[in-house]
Parts: sequence; structure tokens; C-alpha cells
Amino acid sequence: MAESFGSRLRTLIEERGALCVGVDPSAVVIEQWGRNDDPEGVEFVALSTVEAAIGTAVAIKPQVAFFERFGSAGYRILERVIREARDASLLVVADAKRGDIGSSVEGYAQAWLNDRSPLAVDALTANPFLGVGSLGPLVNTALATGRGLFVLAATSNPEGRAIQTAIVDGGRSVEVALLEAIGELNAGADGFGSVGAVIGATREPPAFDLARLGGPILVPGLGAQGATVERVGRLFGEVPRSSVLVNVGRAILERGPDRRAVHDAARRWRDEISGALP
Amino acid sequence: MAESFGSRLRTLIEERGALCVGVDPSAVVIEQWGRNDDPEGVEFVALSTVEAAIGTAVAIKPQVAFFERFGSAGYRILERVIREARDASLLVVADAKRGDIGSSVEGYAQAWLNDRSPLAVDALTANPFLGVGSLGPLVNTALATGRGLFVLAATSNPEGRAIQTAIVDGGRSVEVALLEAIGELNAGADGFGSVGAVIGATREPPAFDLARLGGPILVPGLGAQGATVERVGRLFGEVPRSSVLVNVGRAILERGPDRRAVHDAARRWRDEISGALP
Repeated sequence: MAESFGSRLRTLIEERGALCVGVDPSAVVIEQWGRNDDPEGVEFVALSTVEAAIGTAVAIKPQVAFFERFGSAGYRILERVIREARDASLLVVADAKRGDIGSSVEGYAQAWLNDRSPLAVDALTANPFLGVGSLGPLVNTALATGRGLFVLAATSNPEGRAIQTAIVDGGRSVEVALLEAIGELNAGADGFGSVGAVIGATREPPAFDLARLGGPILVPGLGAQGATVERVGRLFGEVPRSSVLVNVGRAILERGPDRRAVHDAARRWRDEISGALP
Repeated sequence: MAESFGSRLRTLIEERGALCVGVDPSAVVIEQWGRNDDPEGVEFVALSTVEAAIGTAVAIKPQVAFFERFGSAGYRILERVIREARDASLLVVADAKRGDIGSSVEGYAQAWLNDRSPLAVDALTANPFLGVGSLGPLVNTALATGRGLFVLAATSNPEGRAIQTAIVDGGRSVEVALLEAIGELNAGADGFGSVGAVIGATREPPAFDLARLGGPILVPGLGAQGATVERVGRLFGEVPRSSVLVNVGRAILERGPDRRAVHDAARRWRDEISGALP
């Protein structure tokens, strides 16, 4: 039986700090780096970002949308990024926000969480609009293969507030109900669970005791979206630091194409995050 | 300026009926067809399904998960499926349920709704968990290129009920608020809009006057999920028939691998749907 994702993540955060580097080869970033917005430009930015993450980060988070822009050619690059990161002992969290029902979710589990897939990653972000229950095949495959999920719960963007704060039967908000459901999925885990939540750092914390989550938290929203490390410290200072994975993307990539500058920015963010989550 | 998706869809439904054939090369279907579950098996099932849709359907709906199972090799097959369907004058609705924020949504718009992309389709399904507002780049690109969106609103699966019936500020349910937001996006359209809604046929109708949607409705849930054509007729009998696109997947594919049987099943479903939506 493979060691669980939750357990692997905690050990690695203790060793290396909580930084996750966003691999975001958007058209805008590629242009900033002086390259053409084509598959070669995507590959150059993405592989340079992986390089900057080595020795500074515990994980990378490729945003799948930026690879999908070039169809199968973009996916070939994503496969290479995943391979190179894993060869360098970086965890890979695919930011794909997948969600569907029945055999389609099973298909996504085969794509992202199965040893034989060229897209196999350590963890996948998942969208719960069709119900946390609908994500069952992703949860089951993740647990069986030592992988993890990060389920969107309280996202960093203002447009998500209306749905995420809507009131479900029972009087709780959608985001609290989601965090409770995640907590239940982790309750059966031996120690720390592998089903995580995405909670943005740009906003007020959900009315939920995060100690009851029992799994990791992926925190977007730093830098370009406006949240500070101090805010991350305030929001997540009460949970064990080894359960919080903090993503920084644009604020690191905007230092490119100078490789040393990108690497230095990653190291600074790691150190600042470690200072804020003591 | 390209003719809008909404307008093209209406004309074609009047000419050919309302059937959309689901292109669902899942492991289970491929095995039923006596093939190995590998990229060749995916391609065989998918291209045979496109063939069955020619002359019987107005559109195909490839479920992207089943192609993503094989990474870039699966996406190459999806690109071919899209090409062959469009060459045969079938509309293509990519069932990808994409949703994200900011530059990532812009990335998905470039992937699925941009003329230059190998994945360019007529319409894309979108997930609104991050807010309908967050889908702005998809909406704008769709309208600018004569393409469309189908936004998940009231899905066919029971696990989705808790979130979709949660109460937003103002006292409406999430699904009604989504349908209202879609109606507002279509309000500016010249005649019929191109932003559609996904409303499952397996459930009670949302408390919303569908005449106010102003755009097309994609209806999943027939056959394998248990809904009947009579039910589709009851649920959508009051909206203009040319605005309802009814998907059938498994119930057609399970007739394979005999090509004539698959084609005959598609024709029968089309005729039954036409009878139920007079």
C-alpha cells in the first residue's frame, strides 16, 4: 500500500516549507518573458518554473487551462512538466478543477490519479458543484493510489461568494457544508487525511473549525490576487503548519525570464510564508 | 460577424430534430464493443459514434474525460473527432464542464472557443461554482466567435441537489439564480441568445419560467440515467422546441459495435424526441 498523499505532504512541508509554485504559462506571462505565445513558449516558461521550484518549493501547481490552449501539443508539454517535476521530487498538484458524474468522474480519475496515465499527478483540484458525493471515484482512486484531492470550498474570487455562501438545508452555508463533507471523508483516514480543501486567502474565513478538516488546505490568492503572507498567517495560524500548502504563481513568474530572479523570488516567498506560519 | 451559435442551433434543430449524440468512449463501452481500452479503442468507438450521428443528429457531445484518460494521445483523438464531426456539418458540444477564474478562464476560452485552437468547438459546457461572473471570458469569446456555452444549472444527478437548491441572498435557489443570470446574459442578444443552460430530465423543473432564459437548453439524463422522452416533453413542452437539445449517450452506444444497430438506435431516439416535443 502506497504511503498516503496527506502523510507525504506533511513530511515534505516540515522539511521544505509550505510553498507551492504555480506553473501558469498564460499568454500574458509568456509575452512578459519575451517569447511567442505558442507551444514552445509554454514549454519554456513551464520548465523554467519547475527549475525555480527545485530547492525552494514542496510542490508545483500547473494550471491545466494554459496547456489545454494548445490541445494535444499542450498536453504533451504538460506530461513532460509532470515527469520532470516528479523526477526532481516535487509534488505535482494539477489545477484542473474537474467535476462530473458517474462514469465521467471515473474517467477523470483514470486520467489524473492512475499510475498508468501520462498525466498521473500527486493531487488534483476538484469542483464540487455536482455534489461531493459525485466525486466518489476521484476520492476512491486517490486513496487507493496514495494520491490526493483538493476540493474547491471557499475560493479566492468575489464572484464565487453568492453560491458558496448560499444556505443549504440545515442552515449552514455551502462552503461550510463542503468542509464538513471533506472532514467526513478524512475521518476514516489513519491520522491525517488526503482529501484537502481549497480556501482562498483573500477573504474572511468560513465559519468552520479547520482542525475538523482532517486534511490539507491549498491556499491560493497570494500576490497578484492581493492577499499577503500576514493574512495567511492570521487565517491559518491555528491549524498545524504542515497541513497548509500556499500557492504563489504570478508574483514569482513576473520576475522572469531571468532564471536567478525567478528562483530568488520563489525562495523569498518560501521564507516569508515560513515566517508567517510558525 | 459570424452567425451566432443560438441562431445556428435553432435553424439546425428545425431541420434535423433535437438529438445530440453523446460520444462517450468509457472503458465500459469500449469493452462492450469488444475492443481493448486503449487509444485505438477510444478512437474506434468515438469515430463510429460520429458516423451514427450523421443523418440522425444535430450535434455530438464528446465527454472530454474519456479522451483525457489517455493524456495527449487521447486529446489527439478528440481533435480528430471534432474535425470529422464538423466536416460532416454536425455541431460539436464539448462536455468539459470547465470553470475557473481570471486568466485561467481566459485560457479555457482560448482552448475551446478560438478559431485557431485544434479543440475549437461550437459550444462548451461550463461549471458556475466560481460564479457566473467568473465565466466572463468564456461568454465574451463565445459571442465574438459565433460559439456558445451551456452552463450547468440543475443537473441530472441526485448528489447535486444540496448545492443547487441552496438559498442565495434574495431567497431564490442557486439553480434559479443561475438561470436568471443566464437570462440576463442573453437579454442583450439579437433575438435568441447563445448562452444555454444544462437542465437534467431526471428531476423536477426549477421554479423558473424557461421562456425567460432566452437561450438554448441542453438536456442530459435520458436512457441510462432513467428519464423518458415523455418526461422531456412534460418538462420542456412549453419552450420553443428549437431551443431544446436532448442528449442521448449510453442508450445509443450500448447497441454497438454493430454500426447499423447504433445508427438505427440514434434515428429512433431522434424520432421519439421529435414526437415528444411537437
